[in-house]
Amino acid sequence: MTNSISKFPVLGQEALKTAFRMHASGVAIITSKTASGKPIGFTATSVTSLGSTPPLVSFNIARGSSSYEHLVVGQLVAIHTLCAKNLELAQRMAGPKEHRFTQNDFDLHEDVPIFTQASSVLLGRVRDRIEVEANAVVVVDALASTEANDDARPLLYYRRGYLTATERLAENS
Amino acid sequence: MTNSISKFPVLGQEALKTAFRMHASGVAIITSKTASGKPIGFTATSVTSLGSTPPLVSFNIARGSSSYEHLVVGQLVAIHTLCAKNLELAQRMAGPKEHRFTQNDFDLHEDVPIFTQASSVLLGRVRDRIEVEANAVVVVDALASTEANDDARPLLYYRRGYLTATERLAENS
Repeated sequence: MTNSISKFPVLGQEALKTAFRMHASGVAIITSKTASGKPIGFTATSVTSLGSTPPLVSFNIARGSSSYEHLVVGQLVAIHTLCAKNLELAQRMAGPKEHRFTQNDFDLHEDVPIFTQASSVLLGRVRDRIEVEANAVVVVDALASTEANDDARPLLYYRRGYLTATERLAENS
Repeated sequence: MTNSISKFPVLGQEALKTAFRMHASGVAIITSKTASGKPIGFTATSVTSLGSTPPLVSFNIARGSSSYEHLVVGQLVAIHTLCAKNLELAQRMAGPKEHRFTQNDFDLHEDVPIFTQASSVLLGRVRDRIEVEANAVVVVDALASTEANDDARPLLYYRRGYLTATERLAENS
């Protein structure tokens, strides 16, 4: 341990980009519906647990996103975790909106699209939306899920690309 | 596409656990200090970006955690992204508190411990703490970072163990 002042040469917006280039994220798809029952959905890398009692999930979204107005309190949402074989789905749901639901590869549950090829699907309802500058933290009450597909390799986003993880380093004791 | 009702047999707390077993997370270490200048820190898998204008980061923490009382608004924090070679550090900072800072392998920046072996270090200040049931979303203004170590393989947490990712599947266009 030294008491010297460390160097932090990258500032502001660039500091965030530089540091987060090295942060890997699990890739998820969030789906819901409009007031008239049309499907909406998008790829998200900010999904995280927010406690188990009660079971809560949060994700971040830009308030300027076309999906945001539909994610009102009480709205039903499906959070899909993705595995390596879902790569095309992740890319499609991050691409142009008009192509996201044209492949008829989903079921509907109360008008919310469900991609059963995902490694797991969690159903929940929006509990709160916490607006922070141009973004929002959406808090979801977890209600029910499918049985997870235990064979899956997880899909990750890291350094502007998709990858998967195969090398286990240690088990939690 | 079928209009049939999908099956979601796992309920409540178990639903969250079942679904999130399949969600991989990047592993980070967050450090800060007590009011008397003593180091604090912990391993976190909930670190995510919350927009770039202004640059914001969020992470989740249990309000019952011993670190929580020190993460007051304005407090300086260091968010370290980790790579595969930081496995021991991730395990140590998730283990007993009395062993976390005994190895003298960190610098100090305004009394905040900095692990320069991390793949990147982002300095910021707590902007807000949003309490949700027994947990809180901590929002941090990103201020400055180190240059990232571009050779790193990211450290991940998935299915109760640590792993790393080496297989790139696709680049973002």
